[in-house]
Amino acid sequence: MLEHPSDRKRLGRVEGLLIDLDGVMYVGDRAIEGAREAVSRLKRSGLPVRFVTNTTTRSRAMLHERVVKLDLPIEPHEIINAPRAAASHLSHIGKPRCRFVVSPDVLEEFEGIERDDMNPEAIVIGDIGDRWDYDLMSELFASLVKGARLIALHKGRYYQGSDGLILDIGAFVTGLEYASGVIATVIGKPSAAFFHAAAADMGIAPDRAAMVGDDIESDVGGAQRAGLAGILVKTGKFRSHLASASSVRPDAVVPSIADLPNLMGV
Amino acid sequence: MLEHPSDRKRLGRVEGLLIDLDGVMYVGDRAIEGAREAVSRLKRSGLPVRFVTNTTTRSRAMLHERVVKLDLPIEPHEIINAPRAAASHLSHIGKPRCRFVVSPDVLEEFEGIERDDMNPEAIVIGDIGDRWDYDLMSELFASLVKGARLIALHKGRYYQGSDGLILDIGAFVTGLEYASGVIATVIGKPSAAFFHAAAADMGIAPDRAAMVGDDIESDVGGAQRAGLAGILVKTGKFRSHLASASSVRPDAVVPSIADLPNLMGV
Repeated sequence: MLEHPSDRKRLGRVEGLLIDLDGVMYVGDRAIEGAREAVSRLKRSGLPVRFVTNTTTRSRAMLHERVVKLDLPIEPHEIINAPRAAASHLSHIGKPRCRFVVSPDVLEEFEGIERDDMNPEAIVIGDIGDRWDYDLMSELFASLVKGARLIALHKGRYYQGSDGLILDIGAFVTGLEYASGVIATVIGKPSAAFFHAAAADMGIAPDRAAMVGDDIESDVGGAQRAGLAGILVKTGKFRSHLASASSVRPDAVVPSIADLPNLMGV
Repeated sequence: MLEHPSDRKRLGRVEGLLIDLDGVMYVGDRAIEGAREAVSRLKRSGLPVRFVTNTTTRSRAMLHERVVKLDLPIEPHEIINAPRAAASHLSHIGKPRCRFVVSPDVLEEFEGIERDDMNPEAIVIGDIGDRWDYDLMSELFASLVKGARLIALHKGRYYQGSDGLILDIGAFVTGLEYASGVIATVIGKPSAAFFHAAAADMGIAPDRAAMVGDDIESDVGGAQRAGLAGILVKTGKFRSHLASASSVRPDAVVPSIADLPNLMGV
């Protein structure tokens, strides 16, 4: 792992930053020390910034409410979650007519995309709780066989509920892939589609963007595979033994988000 | 492909035969010429014979009705379909307490196996039409996470219905595998479990049995991978270009089931 990156040139080309929220801007209910000032300084320098998260259980409005409570200078449009990245991805591929298999509060992210449940060109799958049944699977399968694309906000196996493990949408996405032979584009870190959509939202090419995260594999490795620079912070879920053991070599490592303005020379 | 098998020794050791029904004993509504006499002669020689099929949409009683109509000398207990192979497999692994996710008419194959829907040691999945939903998937997932085995009568992607392709159970089996990390034992040709269960039903070891089929990959190749000898007939779905192109080398090739008694020297 590089403590002092040799590839300064790479960071010198960076024209926009993607910053992970959880673990980089805050941990639990506390903002990271110096995070507020760092973001203000980055913004004053004119560098575009987006805040990215894999959380799909909270709407962007709820995420924004949280950062406002923590007094972090983040605008609603600067937050990019998987639904919004999916919307951006759909625009990028020419706004196909879509069937949205998502929760009602996520649906608002997809304004401006034409809906077509009968004969969609793309199917977008998100969290719909216990609404899965054979008829739905069968309809989606039929559309996929007719040529529809498959887009999944994530492919989670299960999550921890108060009463034990809860089956997540990955089972249904995988089942549809198996039956139809259509492989899903999975949005959300560490998919390239997510990083590309977030960079496009700032209007810059992936190789001119850097991702700042606390997860060496998903954040840094995922970003690098997608063509972005990857910057690791030592807060949140960062563990030095995991970072040392990883084959991922960050373009830079900084103690925390507070050190980012200096690293970027702003 | 061997027209004149060199490994006569292998066939000389054979103490029982598994014979595919569709394409070997009959095609459509017509029995293969000489099939009746061949089976009679094999049976008179004292060689145990079982008739195997992957058909799971028909009960064994319905399959038997069909062969009786074609005047083929086959007893009900000599027919082995996937549900019956699954029952045999369950006996072989110590009769775990089971949750059966199968159609009511298939349930009768599993008499003598204790049922336990709440806390099963094994889950058996067959065709249940449109009865799949989130609650069922969720319950099965919870049992798998608690350590239950997963047994699938087959893993079909889809089948041809009168109105188009119909989503089959493979999607749900694959989804459960993905979410739970438990890999299904798939019963039915070409799985080794199927051939072993059918051989066990005759009371003989797999390496003392031969499989006779018209599908070089699933019948002959599958049987050989399971340790049985594989004999190819040139009826049914046999196509010489497919057989020539295959990497599978049958232990013997005969024009039809009518030639089997001579091949076996009875």
